[in-house]
Amino acid sequence: MRPYEQLLSTFENYLAQTEFASEPEKLYAPIGYSLAGGGKRLRPMLLMLACGMFTQDTAPALPAAAAVEIFHNFTLLHDDIMDNAPVRRGKPSVYAKWGQNVAILSGDAMIICAYRMLSQCPPALLPQIMQVFNTMALQVCEGQQYDMDFEQKRKVSVVEYMHMIELKTSVLLAGAVTIGAIIGGAPKEDCRTLYRFAIELGLAFQLQDDLLDSYGDEQLGKTIGGDILEGKQTYLMITAMSRADEPTRETLRRTYRDASLSDAEKIARVKAVYDRLDVPRLTEQQISVKFERALALLDTLSVDAARTQPLREFAESLMGRKK
Amino acid sequence: MRPYEQLLSTFENYLAQTEFASEPEKLYAPIGYSLAGGGKRLRPMLLMLACGMFTQDTAPALPAAAAVEIFHNFTLLHDDIMDNAPVRRGKPSVYAKWGQNVAILSGDAMIICAYRMLSQCPPALLPQIMQVFNTMALQVCEGQQYDMDFEQKRKVSVVEYMHMIELKTSVLLAGAVTIGAIIGGAPKEDCRTLYRFAIELGLAFQLQDDLLDSYGDEQLGKTIGGDILEGKQTYLMITAMSRADEPTRETLRRTYRDASLSDAEKIARVKAVYDRLDVPRLTEQQISVKFERALALLDTLSVDAARTQPLREFAESLMGRKK
Repeated sequence: MRPYEQLLSTFENYLAQTEFASEPEKLYAPIGYSLAGGGKRLRPMLLMLACGMFTQDTAPALPAAAAVEIFHNFTLLHDDIMDNAPVRRGKPSVYAKWGQNVAILSGDAMIICAYRMLSQCPPALLPQIMQVFNTMALQVCEGQQYDMDFEQKRKVSVVEYMHMIELKTSVLLAGAVTIGAIIGGAPKEDCRTLYRFAIELGLAFQLQDDLLDSYGDEQLGKTIGGDILEGKQTYLMITAMSRADEPTRETLRRTYRDASLSDAEKIARVKAVYDRLDVPRLTEQQISVKFERALALLDTLSVDAARTQPLREFAESLMGRKK
Repeated sequence: MRPYEQLLSTFENYLAQTEFASEPEKLYAPIGYSLAGGGKRLRPMLLMLACGMFTQDTAPALPAAAAVEIFHNFTLLHDDIMDNAPVRRGKPSVYAKWGQNVAILSGDAMIICAYRMLSQCPPALLPQIMQVFNTMALQVCEGQQYDMDFEQKRKVSVVEYMHMIELKTSVLLAGAVTIGAIIGGAPKEDCRTLYRFAIELGLAFQLQDDLLDSYGDEQLGKTIGGDILEGKQTYLMITAMSRADEPTRETLRRTYRDASLSDAEKIARVKAVYDRLDVPRLTEQQISVKFERALALLDTLSVDAARTQPLREFAESLMGRKK
């Protein structure tokens, strides 16, 4: 078992024995349902791994790890309402299963539960940790708002898109590693370096997510081409629009709107344009640039290279680049 | 100017100069809109008044006072979605003005902003204050869930109703005075007494709200009889149902559902039943019992009676019992 796999099982045990109230049932049942849904536990893992770089005893980081995981699941709960998404990780979303009002209120309760976990951090560190968490949490909301704003926008630039995913995805990873490092007793400079590491990792991760949605394989349980069918602004689409000439742009727009096309046909036509414009290769390139930048930052930390190894391996497994 | 009026103006100034980000506009504009809406500032006032009982310098309590006010306004934002309420304090609710998704996400951001204000409490007190705040905040969500559950329930007992309003209304007032007292350096026993004071005050306040909705005057800007027209479970309705014989209960149920009745006719018929069952007088009696119990608790505090005077006067003005 790799070190990060051990940490994952420690975290799963901790989360499973975390108690939530049971009444009123409609308030608390969706919380358990949502947290039991699994997922990669990416954020708590990053927090624990960052902590473990600076101390043997990572147990004091468990409540904060649970806090970021609960917070992340809250965002999924509310995002699913806003995006009308009835399915999450192959199961009905909370909103589809219990209705909208339950999803709103349970999500609210989850934010509070996240803060309740966070309050169990070492008291002397709490003010500093709260500051990191609050800033991060607000930025995640900002990212979601920009994402919704983009749906109404005809033209979104690559810069705007990267800013949005930095807020919506990266800052939560960055907040997680920073909090882990603080609890581990890391020097300030290392906290800042890890923050930047996770920003780059998050961008690489999100671009890869965009790429896999159109070019991945079915194993991942995602519909291939879902983003195309929804007409979503993704890195692929925005890059295509920015590289295309006006007639090609018009073709893309028309294809998106064309209700007479079958799903398969629509996906094939859009991907043909992507391919012609070299979008998959450019995206791969961006993913590599960001991921390599992230790994390079780990080399600049004040700790021995061996201590960075578990986090490095975890990042590689996350990006499907296991060595 | 009474002491509590001075505190109110200090608080309004503080809140007005509290800065929120401005972009993305749809995330932050509703926060300013909601906080500018006024209201009684009941919760921050209670917090500041409780603090002022134990110290001259209430300035350190201002961020926490803002936190409870922001949290309260978040609950209104999300409750208005869940209750389909298009009007709030005579203006369009956030949900009616900006749409549901904006109201969900801005409300989320408000919870986080509330915690951000709370983080500015004196660091040594933060863990204790967080604990009070988190417990209180979760209970408020529980109260809202019970309130929604009651809509589906044929029979709600007076005990169940009182439990619900204690969670939905009282605990936020109780959390506010407790946090104020903690910041003021109150002995533990006084914190507990003030907590109970605010629980009783909150119950009195909520029952009075129920009474005024059907028997108040138009000055308050509320539609008289709104609760009756919505078929809401209120103290009046539940008391009437528990005191009525079966034929009267059936009459009440039929009147509620009768679409052929005009609003005025429906209100008049229901109120005629309330009057016959002595419901208004019984409600008044309950309000007095709870309010007197609250005031009596103030007499048991460890401070001089003079120091409790501003809070006492504020409570009396709140209940329209200014002396």
